[in-house]
Amino acid sequence: MIEIPTADRPLEIAAVLFPGFELLDIFGPLEMFGLLGERAKITLAARNLAPVASGAGPQAMPEVLISDLKQPDIVLIPGGQGTRSLVGDRGFLEALTLCAKKATIVASVCTGSALLAKTGLLDGRQATSNKLAYSWATSQSTNVLWQPEARWVVDGNFWTSSGIAAGIDMSLALIAHLFDTETAIEIANRAEYVWNQDPDLDPFAD
Amino acid sequence: MIEIPTADRPLEIAAVLFPGFELLDIFGPLEMFGLLGERAKITLAARNLAPVASGAGPQAMPEVLISDLKQPDIVLIPGGQGTRSLVGDRGFLEALTLCAKKATIVASVCTGSALLAKTGLLDGRQATSNKLAYSWATSQSTNVLWQPEARWVVDGNFWTSSGIAAGIDMSLALIAHLFDTETAIEIANRAEYVWNQDPDLDPFAD
Repeated sequence: MIEIPTADRPLEIAAVLFPGFELLDIFGPLEMFGLLGERAKITLAARNLAPVASGAGPQAMPEVLISDLKQPDIVLIPGGQGTRSLVGDRGFLEALTLCAKKATIVASVCTGSALLAKTGLLDGRQATSNKLAYSWATSQSTNVLWQPEARWVVDGNFWTSSGIAAGIDMSLALIAHLFDTETAIEIANRAEYVWNQDPDLDPFAD
Repeated sequence: MIEIPTADRPLEIAAVLFPGFELLDIFGPLEMFGLLGERAKITLAARNLAPVASGAGPQAMPEVLISDLKQPDIVLIPGGQGTRSLVGDRGFLEALTLCAKKATIVASVCTGSALLAKTGLLDGRQATSNKLAYSWATSQSTNVLWQPEARWVVDGNFWTSSGIAAGIDMSLALIAHLFDTETAIEIANRAEYVWNQDPDLDPFAD
């Protein structure tokens, strides 16, 4: 287990925004981390300090440049339609690589793992991705040990989840990992969310 | 059933932002509506055209003033810590009343129904709210027929859901109502979300 000092200071979570990000990939996990209250500090990061439009339209406002992130405890990488062009965007992948290397834990939701795969950071590691975009996502790298049936996968400090809502289950598991299971259950209850606690239970695999 | 013409034009959803809104109350439902693709148009509305901070910190960027909304098919009202002061904010409640009266369907998540209750629009109607904030929310009006055990409640054109994640289940039910159940199931599957289709199944009631 990776030790994160959470007793003395808040858990620092940096979420990466890009045009065409999937709303729930970001805001599902951030709801759960947000319910930690003063035990968590959430920052939205992007390549420019201007509103970033999700694939569905609504815009979020980043507070910091990806390149200016210090050493977040967790960096959260969403998926979404925007990933389709970003896998070919060398500048973005370099910024993502640098920021992931500074983070203690790297967590992706949905096709966010396609971006991570493209950086090479997942080489030799187990990971998963969105089930409907699975063949596209996994085609981004043959060096990743892709898991076709998993709600989320943990390999070292890399946490990758299946599509969209799976990120909520993974983020609760991350809270259980960093705090304790009781804290995660209490947060799921406050969110009135039925938490799937089992990473191997994937109702959306083939 | 209220007829909304969705064949010729997109379903128009306006989501109301205010300082201290709950992230998932807004972005859970908007993820589901967003997966309708070109069949839906989502607009974020607020009292000022400046970034609005959620209770957890992350900011969203509104595109239109609440007072400038035309006649949305659905107006979505979130809950969150911000509702605690807004129930005493006459200007906000008047703006909310006008915008709700223009909408075909009014949908609230979590303590968003406390705001609606305060406007008087829920008088004589059945409604529900967040289960942990239930006594506070229901104390906003004794004229509402509050339902303590319900994932969501429909009364005429008012749809009110329980806390936070319950809004996702309600929004899928709204999609089933306005399109068909197959469309809602297909969207839930694409979101890899296990949809609770039963409004009476409330795992978080006392």
